[in-house]
Amino acid sequence: MIDRRTQDGATATNRILVTGASSFIGRHSVVPLLQRGYEVHLTVRGSSSRDFLEPDILARCRIHEVDLLDSRATERCVQNVRPSHLLHFAWHADISTRLSSPANLKWAAATLNLATNFVTAGGRRIVVCGTCAEYDWHFGTLSEDETPLSPATLYGAAKNSTHDLLRFAAPRLDVSLAWGRVFSCYGSSEPAGRLVVDVVTSLLAGRTVACSAGQQIRDYMFTEDIGCAFATLVDCGYDGAVNIGTGVPVRVSDLITTTAELIGRPDLIQLGARAPRPGEPGQLVADVTRLKEKVGYHPRTDLKTGLARTIEWYRNAAPR
Amino acid sequence: MIDRRTQDGATATNRILVTGASSFIGRHSVVPLLQRGYEVHLTVRGSSSRDFLEPDILARCRIHEVDLLDSRATERCVQNVRPSHLLHFAWHADISTRLSSPANLKWAAATLNLATNFVTAGGRRIVVCGTCAEYDWHFGTLSEDETPLSPATLYGAAKNSTHDLLRFAAPRLDVSLAWGRVFSCYGSSEPAGRLVVDVVTSLLAGRTVACSAGQQIRDYMFTEDIGCAFATLVDCGYDGAVNIGTGVPVRVSDLITTTAELIGRPDLIQLGARAPRPGEPGQLVADVTRLKEKVGYHPRTDLKTGLARTIEWYRNAAPR
Repeated sequence: MIDRRTQDGATATNRILVTGASSFIGRHSVVPLLQRGYEVHLTVRGSSSRDFLEPDILARCRIHEVDLLDSRATERCVQNVRPSHLLHFAWHADISTRLSSPANLKWAAATLNLATNFVTAGGRRIVVCGTCAEYDWHFGTLSEDETPLSPATLYGAAKNSTHDLLRFAAPRLDVSLAWGRVFSCYGSSEPAGRLVVDVVTSLLAGRTVACSAGQQIRDYMFTEDIGCAFATLVDCGYDGAVNIGTGVPVRVSDLITTTAELIGRPDLIQLGARAPRPGEPGQLVADVTRLKEKVGYHPRTDLKTGLARTIEWYRNAAPR
Repeated sequence: MIDRRTQDGATATNRILVTGASSFIGRHSVVPLLQRGYEVHLTVRGSSSRDFLEPDILARCRIHEVDLLDSRATERCVQNVRPSHLLHFAWHADISTRLSSPANLKWAAATLNLATNFVTAGGRRIVVCGTCAEYDWHFGTLSEDETPLSPATLYGAAKNSTHDLLRFAAPRLDVSLAWGRVFSCYGSSEPAGRLVVDVVTSLLAGRTVACSAGQQIRDYMFTEDIGCAFATLVDCGYDGAVNIGTGVPVRVSDLITTTAELIGRPDLIQLGARAPRPGEPGQLVADVTRLKEKVGYHPRTDLKTGLARTIEWYRNAAPR
């Protein structure tokens, strides 16, 4: 890749800083961004391994070790890179405490701090990974225009308050802002404790899987498509919140059954063996009108294809 | 003062950390907190002078040098002090850029970070200094229950979003939270560039003062009373937002005229010599029902008495 950085430290117009680039979703934004001609800078924590991308892809990026919860380290990193674009995925990632941990407040703070440093260093466009948990979950189909923002969890509230302030600030600080709200997702390298990874790895290992009845309806999007959608969102210049989903309702029991059939072990699935989680909403599906019409992104991977590729990835991954 | 800290580093039940303790308002909370029996810890920036309190008062407090915009330094300070109570005044203070600076986002981040560290270190009650700028200024009398929160400025938005997230988080993190919304204020040590200090110092120096017509109506509270109100708010245990004002409407031209009469130089005042600032709201007065009935605080200093004391302070202060 050609190094487009000017020698005097000025801000390039296509230099993007991607945080959380080693995350389940974030890693899939890198190739689409490179394909669009961005000079891609990635932040990783010092202790992270570098195997989240193929070596030839990593070689085309610049890696910056930084702890984004350290405000001064973040400031130094942003001043050093001087990106024109910011794509921010990094957040508290521990699955078991994600929805309720006080770490959500620290990541709200880290996001505000990062965005401010980015603006001060001359940055022009911010895209942040939000969540369907920002919406009122009493509504089944969630629309950016119509559904109230009334989070039920600290995770959703932290994302929503951060967005609230950034969208107020953005026009006043002369910076462009888009906020992509992710729904349910699945794909390679999923952190253990989430549905698809647990079903797939259990079935591949020949273990039975005790599930709830799975009557809830969700919007499951393949992580490669989510990464592409964010790269498209960065590039399109659209300002505002955008649902990142497929718009296709899927009953969780169907997702599980399809996975089991693709693996050839439907016998190992025990639907209804576990009680549903209390307070679990019945349906959460994205209205994707804005994603399609304003951003111009259409998901490419249907559920069966995505699941087959996910299973293939786990078959070839190191045994657990 | 007796040092109530236990030797094993456990959190005391009456140890308060006061940030922004050297500020115009914050300094006036210290004596009332000491009087209420708190072990008072103050944060100051490294470069700050220590003359914001009388030496005998300062000697009864513990001072911690910390830059609250440095997330790691803040974490170390809070873990070191392990306060049971937090009274947070610190914020971006530059008068000329206060309403619109991106530093407001950094202070929102610093506040969230500080609060999270406080909770993690076992803290029990948080009181934060908010602002009437969180309200929709199209309303003349601003009430916690009834007036929409729709800030017109980045300052108001940063405070409001921070409160929004903290009040969602507080019950979930088992911590008590009150949020005091300050209206207009005046008193000793006011930063230059604000109304009362500029009028008083100009008149004392024999300079003419060119003012707007001063038709706008405000709620001016003496900073010593504001400090007392916050100490009362800390102690009363009330959870929620509380207006910190007098409830007494004062026309700005009357405030200026009264000041000039007290100094004996009404001849130096030129009302109407300057255009009013664009977008200046006509009236901003606090509904103080909650402050009086729930917090139990009644302002003690009427405007004329407060102005006389302020003028006396400036007469005795070093010449400018």
